Amino acid sequence: MKRVVTLGEIMLRLSPPDYKRIIQATSLDVVYGGGEANVAIGLSNLGLKSSFVTKLPKHSIGTSAVGHLNAYGVETSHIIRNGERMGIYFLEKGYSMRSSEVIYDRANSAFAKSDPDEYDFAKIFEDADWFHFSGITPALSSSCYDITIKALKEAKRKGITVSCDLNYRKKLWEFEKARKVMTSLMEYVDVCIGVEPLSLLDQFGNDEKDAILKKHTPLEYEKVFALLKQRFGFKYMAANLRKSLSANRDILQGVVSDGTNTFSSGAYEVEIVDRVGGGDAFSAGLIYGLIQNFDLQDVAEFANASFLLKHTIYGDANIVSASEVERFISNNGNTLINR
Amino acid sequence: MKRVVTLGEIMLRLSPPDYKRIIQATSLDVVYGGGEANVAIGLSNLGLKSSFVTKLPKHSIGTSAVGHLNAYGVETSHIIRNGERMGIYFLEKGYSMRSSEVIYDRANSAFAKSDPDEYDFAKIFEDADWFHFSGITPALSSSCYDITIKALKEAKRKGITVSCDLNYRKKLWEFEKARKVMTSLMEYVDVCIGVEPLSLLDQFGNDEKDAILKKHTPLEYEKVFALLKQRFGFKYMAANLRKSLSANRDILQGVVSDGTNTFSSGAYEVEIVDRVGGGDAFSAGLIYGLIQNFDLQDVAEFANASFLLKHTIYGDANIVSASEVERFISNNGNTLINR
Amino acid sequence: MKRVVTLGEIMLRLSPPDYKRIIQATSLDVVYGGGEANVAIGLSNLGLKSSFVTKLPKHSIGTSAVGHLNAYGVETSHIIRNGERMGIYFLEKGYSMRSSEVIYDRANSAFAKSDPDEYDFAKIFEDADWFHFSGITPALSSSCYDITIKALKEAKRKGITVSCDLNYRKKLWEFEKARKVMTSLMEYVDVCIGVEPLSLLDQFGNDEKDAILKKHTPLEYEKVFALLKQRFGFKYMAANLRKSLSANRDILQGVVSDGTNTFSSGAYEVEIVDRVGGGDAFSAGLIYGLIQNFDLQDVAEFANASFLLKHTIYGDANIVSASEVERFISNNGNTLINR
Amino acid sequence: MKRVVTLGEIMLRLSPPDYKRIIQATSLDVVYGGGEANVAIGLSNLGLKSSFVTKLPKHSIGTSAVGHLNAYGVETSHIIRNGERMGIYFLEKGYSMRSSEVIYDRANSAFAKSDPDEYDFAKIFEDADWFHFSGITPALSSSCYDITIKALKEAKRKGITVSCDLNYRKKLWEFEKARKVMTSLMEYVDVCIGVEPLSLLDQFGNDEKDAILKKHTPLEYEKVFALLKQRFGFKYMAANLRKSLSANRDILQGVVSDGTNTFSSGAYEVEIVDRVGGGDAFSAGLIYGLIQNFDLQDVAEFANASFLLKHTIYGDANIVSASEVERFISNNGNTLINR
Amino acid sequence: MKRVVTLGEIMLRLSPPDYKRIIQATSLDVVYGGGEANVAIGLSNLGLKSSFVTKLPKHSIGTSAVGHLNAYGVETSHIIRNGERMGIYFLEKGYSMRSSEVIYDRANSAFAKSDPDEYDFAKIFEDADWFHFSGITPALSSSCYDITIKALKEAKRKGITVSCDLNYRKKLWEFEKARKVMTSLMEYVDVCIGVEPLSLLDQFGNDEKDAILKKHTPLEYEKVFALLKQRFGFKYMAANLRKSLSANRDILQGVVSDGTNTFSSGAYEVEIVDRVGGGDAFSAGLIYGLIQNFDLQDVAEFANASFLLKHTIYGDANIVSASEVERFISNNGNTLINR
Amino acid sequence: MKRVVTLGEIMLRLSPPDYKRIIQATSLDVVYGGGEANVAIGLSNLGLKSSFVTKLPKHSIGTSAVGHLNAYGVETSHIIRNGERMGIYFLEKGYSMRSSEVIYDRANSAFAKSDPDEYDFAKIFEDADWFHFSGITPALSSSCYDITIKALKEAKRKGITVSCDLNYRKKLWEFEKARKVMTSLMEYVDVCIGVEPLSLLDQFGNDEKDAILKKHTPLEYEKVFALLKQRFGFKYMAANLRKSLSANRDILQGVVSDGTNTFSSGAYEVEIVDRVGGGDAFSAGLIYGLIQNFDLQDVAEFANASFLLKHTIYGDANIVSASEVERFISNNGNTLINR
Repeated sequence: MKRVVTLGEIMLRLSPPDYKRIIQATSLDVVYGGGEANVAIGLSNLGLKSSFVTKLPKHSIGTSAVGHLNAYGVETSHIIRNGERMGIYFLEKGYSMRSSEVIYDRANSAFAKSDPDEYDFAKIFEDADWFHFSGITPALSSSCYDITIKALKEAKRKGITVSCDLNYRKKLWEFEKARKVMTSLMEYVDVCIGVEPLSLLDQFGNDEKDAILKKHTPLEYEKVFALLKQRFGFKYMAANLRKSLSANRDILQGVVSDGTNTFSSGAYEVEIVDRVGGGDAFSAGLIYGLIQNFDLQDVAEFANASFLLKHTIYGDANIVSASEVERFISNNGNTLINR
Repeated sequence: MKRVVTLGEIMLRLSPPDYKRIIQATSLDVVYGGGEANVAIGLSNLGLKSSFVTKLPKHSIGTSAVGHLNAYGVETSHIIRNGERMGIYFLEKGYSMRSSEVIYDRANSAFAKSDPDEYDFAKIFEDADWFHFSGITPALSSSCYDITIKALKEAKRKGITVSCDLNYRKKLWEFEKARKVMTSLMEYVDVCIGVEPLSLLDQFGNDEKDAILKKHTPLEYEKVFALLKQRFGFKYMAANLRKSLSANRDILQGVVSDGTNTFSSGAYEVEIVDRVGGGDAFSAGLIYGLIQNFDLQDVAEFANASFLLKHTIYGDANIVSASEVERFISNNGNTLINR
Repeated sequence: MKRVVTLGEIMLRLSPPDYKRIIQATSLDVVYGGGEANVAIGLSNLGLKSSFVTKLPKHSIGTSAVGHLNAYGVETSHIIRNGERMGIYFLEKGYSMRSSEVIYDRANSAFAKSDPDEYDFAKIFEDADWFHFSGITPALSSSCYDITIKALKEAKRKGITVSCDLNYRKKLWEFEKARKVMTSLMEYVDVCIGVEPLSLLDQFGNDEKDAILKKHTPLEYEKVFALLKQRFGFKYMAANLRKSLSANRDILQGVVSDGTNTFSSGAYEVEIVDRVGGGDAFSAGLIYGLIQNFDLQDVAEFANASFLLKHTIYGDANIVSASEVERFISNNGNTLINR
Repeated sequence: MKRVVTLGEIMLRLSPPDYKRIIQATSLDVVYGGGEANVAIGLSNLGLKSSFVTKLPKHSIGTSAVGHLNAYGVETSHIIRNGERMGIYFLEKGYSMRSSEVIYDRANSAFAKSDPDEYDFAKIFEDADWFHFSGITPALSSSCYDITIKALKEAKRKGITVSCDLNYRKKLWEFEKARKVMTSLMEYVDVCIGVEPLSLLDQFGNDEKDAILKKHTPLEYEKVFALLKQRFGFKYMAANLRKSLSANRDILQGVVSDGTNTFSSGAYEVEIVDRVGGGDAFSAGLIYGLIQNFDLQDVAEFANASFLLKHTIYGDANIVSASEVERFISNNGNTLINR
Repeated sequence: MKRVVTLGEIMLRLSPPDYKRIIQATSLDVVYGGGEANVAIGLSNLGLKSSFVTKLPKHSIGTSAVGHLNAYGVETSHIIRNGERMGIYFLEKGYSMRSSEVIYDRANSAFAKSDPDEYDFAKIFEDADWFHFSGITPALSSSCYDITIKALKEAKRKGITVSCDLNYRKKLWEFEKARKVMTSLMEYVDVCIGVEPLSLLDQFGNDEKDAILKKHTPLEYEKVFALLKQRFGFKYMAANLRKSLSANRDILQGVVSDGTNTFSSGAYEVEIVDRVGGGDAFSAGLIYGLIQNFDLQDVAEFANASFLLKHTIYGDANIVSASEVERFISNNGNTLINR
Repeated sequence: MKRVVTLGEIMLRLSPPDYKRIIQATSLDVVYGGGEANVAIGLSNLGLKSSFVTKLPKHSIGTSAVGHLNAYGVETSHIIRNGERMGIYFLEKGYSMRSSEVIYDRANSAFAKSDPDEYDFAKIFEDADWFHFSGITPALSSSCYDITIKALKEAKRKGITVSCDLNYRKKLWEFEKARKVMTSLMEYVDVCIGVEPLSLLDQFGNDEKDAILKKHTPLEYEKVFALLKQRFGFKYMAANLRKSLSANRDILQGVVSDGTNTFSSGAYEVEIVDRVGGGDAFSAGLIYGLIQNFDLQDVAEFANASFLLKHTIYGDANIVSASEVERFISNNGNTLINR
């Protein structure tokens, strides 16, 4: 079985139950999540071996995060246990015309303050086939940037496939800084995933690429992918398109390209249980499809189905098996009770 | 007041709250349900006298199931209390494009292992006007088949009207066996209820009838009903049509026929709180309408309104009064707060 | 900062969780609400100073209601604490085609039985800029009618702007009595808010005005507003139009007029978390917009956005800030997660 | 099987979860209870036939109370369904040194306002062997007093055994009025149950009887019982003694007498889940023991075990079977897990 | 009415329900608390006017903390709203032999990073009669120390009574640093409250005072109080003695002294709902008793009853009225249901 | 790190919240547990490597049980995934004088029906240092007996230490059969753990050994241990003594012996959160202590502390680290909040 390593921060997520606002909450629901951790859990549920690398304090909240990963079969033996605090984020789930709100309280986390020397990537990447990271990690701190570079260099040295979800977070860093940093990392990347953040990459000025991206159709993406291929030599590129109808209703579609041909999945409307981690589920589905050597059209369908099913699942992580994804694809949304 | 007897299995239903998957659940919500028990509760809530016949262990879970029936006024004095276990089913409620999943753990239940000799139908049917069963009961075990036959013979002997919801469950038995058994039981049946399972009945080969049924329109059903009337001499036939838009959105329509004329209700889209027991609510509404001697058009509307309102109610059973059904029909979906 | 006083009853609201029917509930969710209290909380959340005047028993349920108001910053120093009981209402939330049901148990509340002599409006209105009441208060009891009159006279004496939400409740009084009483109170009113209840006011026979109102379009309201202006001399009139698609889906639109020109907001479809208090949120938004001297078109948009966002919030009261309302207006329903 | 009828009010009980104070509660737990309803449920759980007589509104809260009684097998066919409201009480459960608080909101209930003419006791007492009431019912209203008298006269006419739990509630009436009324009712009573309220009965001045009762030992009760026997000719008298150590810890002991010999159970310390309804469980155990013709010593043990086990059960009613009570008696508090 | 100002940090407290360990929790219960905020809420519930001063971010969690204070009537108009994060602490409640665990995540809070210049104590102390702080505030950061000094100087200037709860927290600072700092602050303090931390104050070497304190009896405290009076000239000194029997059972006793005479309350065993904030409830009771000019013996009883009742109340803050405290004192632990 | 393998059944445990009876429950709390699984989780939490061997269905409930084990770091790679159902048990937690009740529904589980051929113990025991089983496994079915024998033979072949918790369950088999079977297995056992079940072993007639055991003191156990050593040659024997005061209060003491010298821990009273799995926590503590080569006196203290702390933890499994056990031992029950 193929083994995928992901690197990043996992946070304690706290959210009011029953679509209450935070000021109304007398309890907060608990899950543990973060972009790269979500990808690792998604992959493990799909049936691959995955390993998540981070640093977490020794206290019982850190242990809970590790237990959460373990429960879904993710390897946690490379998680460093030390430091003061772990990142927290508060999620007030929106409904209809009321947007979701996120309050980050992730500064000074054990991971953000961790040092490249703490990570032995030679050992971490033993037997690894794939390494996935996202644009969140280098944004956390300069040492996190250093850790990312260290990981990427070792991955390249070992010939491991590298995927990156560009994942721009405006609350973490300025766009221009993000653009510069992310562009510089692309030399290590084989598979590039992202939507609007594709404008992060410096081929064009914002205006031109934004104009293309704003149309938000697979056709337009085809043009962008061709340009990106030319500039960075990516093996594959993918985008998860979202048209938001309301806080609990989206239309979703996946696009995958090798730079020459671009394949797009069907576009489906989904009613939402939990939107967080949708993009990570897309990445997990994409990596799974590519590892399994699916046709690119099938990769697009598989990644989009994973993306879509995540929206119906509570929490950050995508708890669906490959056979459930495949059943969805072959059923085209037949949702009768299976009994 | 008319008295309806139903016979079948009632199970402990366990389902995760808040659309969680089973693997995420740290508690499971509890209701008690089963096709024929749901019909009995539905009828009692509509205002008729109903009695449910089954066998349940003496332990406190069995007692809870009895209490659940009692709470809605269903007669439970004919329930046999003995045996080892009661059936359980786990329901993972789907949402949007994620289907609901049912895990049955009903083998070897007290009812499935009960013996015809335990049931004194002469006494059970004293003062009864109607007997309802479904295709689930004969599927449970050979002794359950024997119990069904014994009940049907006694019902016929007493001149009681008999209704049957064909209710094919592929996890319980093979289609061909079901077809053979169910066809053989039709001689006792006055009112035949069902949808796709109508193809169970042996008038046609699968292909022809399936072809008709697949169109899923009242018009097509008219043809099937005429053929069924001819073959089995049913007094009434009915079907509850469902077009599933997603796991939480369906379009529903009821069709009722005397073999000569077929009447269909309006078709309504419903957003779903709990889909389980919808068909049972249709049966309860149908039986109620027929017992009250409504015009067949009104029977179709009443049965469909009962079917539809069930989808908005938590649990397996339809907790609506006849006046609520009638208010729905006369309001055509006016849902302003009544204050 | 402007200070708004509202007068009325606040009740203990009890509702089953998870869209259960009352008969299924083993616990009831608790909020405290009432038309005028909701307006006071809404205004405080929008950023104005508001004060709620009522009478509540000294027991801990009364204290809880006061604490609920305090939590949102509403002034409660003018609440009289005495008497036997507070009003209660049970809300069974509907879903889809199942309507919400309200059971009132509000007779003989401390407020309904309170005496005009207990209220020192000269003191209550010190520093007040606006007084808001609704048609519910005079309907509660004859002493509540007397209290209302006393408040209105003092408000007029002090030159305070007075707004009235006509709010007809058929469970509280007969239409003809309501029409007579409410019409007599209009001489004190500067800003008149309402929908169908506009037919309460005696300018026309029911038939003519009803005919106009039934069309339920801003255009028709324009005609009514002109007539009301002529008859009562209102400074402003407003209506919150609701087209109910189901118990959890409405289309909402706000209309505001000075009698000469009528302005209507966009019409938006909203999926509903809690519909109660929507009209009160509209009133709060309207008062806010008028106090801030917005253009009437902007008042209409602001009041409607407040109206609409309330439907996405649990409880009776609108917990949104002015900046959230404004963000909604400028985003036109962009509901991406803000992170 | 013997059939016991009880008459009284059943209320909606609302209490904060997790030992919260009312002001902290965002939900309230729901049970339905009242002295005589609790006795009826207790008896049904012990295995006798019991019937509860009251009046309840037709709304869904009234229906829920009926369903609650039905769930435990209590006959509810004699409950009158009409009127405006049902009684409510709020229970803030104490803990340790913090006392429980009850807020009654029971005035003007359907039962309190019901009329003797509504009750057909000739029919209600058909096949009845025993009638039980308490001092709460005549305290509710003068018509409730009339209903009580009417029931007592019919019970006497039919030769049915009558038991009364004196149950003095100082929030309902003045002691001197209670003493006069209750004393006048004793001529109908065969079995008199009570503790301090025994001083209600007018044989002595308060001082003398209070002095005796204050010692609170079975020995002292023996003297009181002898005097009561002499004065009222009771067949049996009983008292449930409670020494409160804290809000969650009591020592309990039962005393039963025929006026000649007095028998007392063992005294046990119990940790408390829910203290409400303890006295009613004692009455149910006593009635059960007397109906089963136990020796008076065994009656005392059985009634006290029922009393005690109730304290370990959530809600107002005693959900224990006769065999569980007997196991407790024979085990002397062996509480190993039974597996 | 007297007005008391308290200054400090209020945190978001998160604790697993039902005595679960953190690793088992899928939700965390929410309250807001902190030593000086707890005193302010306690005083407001007792019936005094209290004002809490701190700094909190503008986000909805900060607003929730303000709402929590408002709900109990605490003045929040002097709370500064700005900064990045608020302090969090996780409380895993112990049971029996398993200790409670606290995980602090309070570093870099808005309050800890706030500047003395942000606080206008001249305005804050307008109309104030009393200022209370604790040893936690100067431990948080050097700027918090500066804020404390600034407040103390202004309080002295205005002649306001100052009380200090020494409250040593070993997770916040070293003992020797704490001793030095706290000793230096005593010149501003009129009323000194504390237990073991009394050894903080530098009159003795640790050994001698510790030896006295270890005996933990009122008698020993008398000696310490005399020495403290001599050294610091305190007007009053008080200690809340706790003998821990288990994580849910303590024996509590209060001691109050003017340096000449020492008065101790009764010692009571209490079963615990929530132990956090017990000492703060003692301080609130003490301040209340002194402000009301109770005899010192009565002050000791009142402060200890407040201390004790807090242990029976969920959350950090003491939600008891003065009359409840007094009823406890006069009842000596009579905990019968009040109905 | 040492690696311990345990073999047995893990069940879905369902229990009503809040000390409700099953008939009152509208939801059931979920944990997964079973004697040998509990030992594996306990050991993993203490810090050893543990592996649990069983068979579970592929459905999501089986997956949840695996996830539960994974969350605590137990190796699950040797769990066979197949078969129809998993065992269930319902636990109604007792309180005070009301005993806990267990309803087993474990017949025909995947494990009970599994075949020895499915288990490759040569591979399972690779790198293993210790094998633990209990008397429950051979009681489940004859194939489970065969699996046990197969495991024991392989363990002996590999020279792995074997421990057995005799764990007699009267609901699973007859005492005489149990005695015969368990005695026959003792030849493979190095460490024998048990209490009353020691009378299972055939050295004595029941009467004599029972008489010794009934005294339930360490002293008496010393005699029994000496005789067992003589008969079976055990290396170590241990017993966890329990004196039950009520359903939520026990006195616990551990005894360990090498047949020559017997060591007993202190006896502690514990208030109980969850009693299930106490014995398993004792076994885990014992195995840990022996593997760490503690003195036998320290083994007794460690095993008893583990036993005792389990009673304060929700669920079947002991979630305590070795350092928490050691802190408990060194603190002698100091339960102040650690902050």
